[in-house]
Amino acid sequence: MAKEIVLTGITTSGTPHLGNYVGAIRPAIEASRQEDNDAYFFLADYHALIKCQDPARVQQSRQEIAATWLACGLDPEKVTFYRQSDVPEIAELNWLLTCVTAKGLMNRAHAYKGAVDANTADNQDPDFGITMGLFCYPILMAADILAFNANKVPVGRDQIQHIEMARDIAGRFNHLFGEHFVLPEAVVGEEGSILKGLDGRKMSKSYNNTIPLFETEKKLQKGINKIKTNLLEPGEPKDPNDSTVFDIYKAFATPEQTEQMRKHFAEGIAWGEAKKELFKLVNDQLAEPREKYLELMANPAHVEQVLQAGGEKARVHARKRIADLRSAVGLVNFK
Amino acid sequence: MAKEIVLTGITTSGTPHLGNYVGAIRPAIEASRQEDNDAYFFLADYHALIKCQDPARVQQSRQEIAATWLACGLDPEKVTFYRQSDVPEIAELNWLLTCVTAKGLMNRAHAYKGAVDANTADNQDPDFGITMGLFCYPILMAADILAFNANKVPVGRDQIQHIEMARDIAGRFNHLFGEHFVLPEAVVGEEGSILKGLDGRKMSKSYNNTIPLFETEKKLQKGINKIKTNLLEPGEPKDPNDSTVFDIYKAFATPEQTEQMRKHFAEGIAWGEAKKELFKLVNDQLAEPREKYLELMANPAHVEQVLQAGGEKARVHARKRIADLRSAVGLVNFK
Repeated sequence: MAKEIVLTGITTSGTPHLGNYVGAIRPAIEASRQEDNDAYFFLADYHALIKCQDPARVQQSRQEIAATWLACGLDPEKVTFYRQSDVPEIAELNWLLTCVTAKGLMNRAHAYKGAVDANTADNQDPDFGITMGLFCYPILMAADILAFNANKVPVGRDQIQHIEMARDIAGRFNHLFGEHFVLPEAVVGEEGSILKGLDGRKMSKSYNNTIPLFETEKKLQKGINKIKTNLLEPGEPKDPNDSTVFDIYKAFATPEQTEQMRKHFAEGIAWGEAKKELFKLVNDQLAEPREKYLELMANPAHVEQVLQAGGEKARVHARKRIADLRSAVGLVNFK
Repeated sequence: MAKEIVLTGITTSGTPHLGNYVGAIRPAIEASRQEDNDAYFFLADYHALIKCQDPARVQQSRQEIAATWLACGLDPEKVTFYRQSDVPEIAELNWLLTCVTAKGLMNRAHAYKGAVDANTADNQDPDFGITMGLFCYPILMAADILAFNANKVPVGRDQIQHIEMARDIAGRFNHLFGEHFVLPEAVVGEEGSILKGLDGRKMSKSYNNTIPLFETEKKLQKGINKIKTNLLEPGEPKDPNDSTVFDIYKAFATPEQTEQMRKHFAEGIAWGEAKKELFKLVNDQLAEPREKYLELMANPAHVEQVLQAGGEKARVHARKRIADLRSAVGLVNFK
């Protein structure tokens, strides 16, 4: 039986934080080690252009994120790890899919509708400040998936609609031109994998409550020390179910370590002490990848080489695929 | 001084008729012989996919139209003659431009608005049956032009808005990322170059009033015989200013021949006689290219070779261009 193809897109904006690590990077890398699937990981840098018009920022983010995933153990020999923009066949497929996508489908996309609602609330023209990049984004995402006929696409809840749209578009193409595409399925991560941030809400850049992943040890410590706690004194029992410190600890600990910490909470461990334990635990796990990350950041030519090789691997499939699809729509050589 | 770059897109749908020849093919080929410009001609086959979902039809039309232009004297050594779909850099540029195009700009496109109006008049959803291909088409057209920094784009009146949109999009990109694009200008053909069809309206496939360009001599004759005339008898003077026969004659005749025919009209030439003269004139001019056309249609591998060479010539420029633009937006190699 053919292996399942699992495709993971990695947004290349911002600098990765602990929440990204726990929620996305670590589980994806673990899953990629399974033998029963064929994993594709790509830096979604064509997508990054929708929101970011600062070339230096786009460039910096691509490099940091590539280094982060490699440092965290993504094995480019085992998976196919590439930059979206190194596979121009995706842009070509994007056009083929654009021609079969109903405009009404795009009108219903959550991200677009959200932007329209915000404009309307502001008494602006509904499409004020909205680019065609935002509007067309679900088609490009369909191209990302369908270029490799991925069966499974791990996504957050907010992305489920995009996978449904990719299915719709693929189905329409199949209907018009024959069965070329497998209909992809969304794989939604467990709720448990969402890490809390400094203020107890979901850790997210937009809440400004993140703890950096690969900055210095000192910054990690400082970040952990800033986690909001209640006013209970040392010696007073603390509730692990209502503690961000415990929550993050648990995300990095073995079940035994977690039980131990739960006991410490019942026994009234001081917040300072608990944070020290948390820092030690996290830092022990991050020290090695952090070193690897710094090495990779200092050696961009090496990362470039890895990505170029990955791009070539991806293109072997994408080229064959686009050739089939071109022929399906009537763009064939004369003979 | 650098030569002006003149870019002409050729729609690859339908089979060319006399109106296409007089209105588009002949003047474009004449213009391409000027030494002071650098002419690009492309078969707009990515665009063809918007309207046509019949692969055999797309393929047939591309081949017929390539053969027609070559048979009519387009010199692939002098100009750059290629299929749009052989230059994937255009699809990539299409995405870069999509990211900087305001959705509001596309909302205002005539073709889209026309489709919406028709739906509204039918009490349908405004976007009923409208694809993203139709909606995004002006961006792809901008990519066609901007991929080569064309200065001049010969178009029909209905296409002027698209050139204005290409200017808008180019200007926006320049504003965000530096002066990368020349703003293209529309060159609108003379009204005189519109040929009348069998019924006296503009010759057009959509009016079903065309005379074929390169079918058999017999079909040309049959077509000409079907041109609508009035009931004036032989010997009665006829008005050349109100005659499709005269109109078409003039489009193929020298000024002297036209004057001669004008005299015949005043003298009351019989319609049958006038049509015979018209057939002779047109057929004499088409006989040689028709033979060439049939040869080319019988030798698709040769046409393929010509287009591949043209595609390679175009890509030399497109590749350099897209490399510059990728670097401008932040998609550069790590080093």
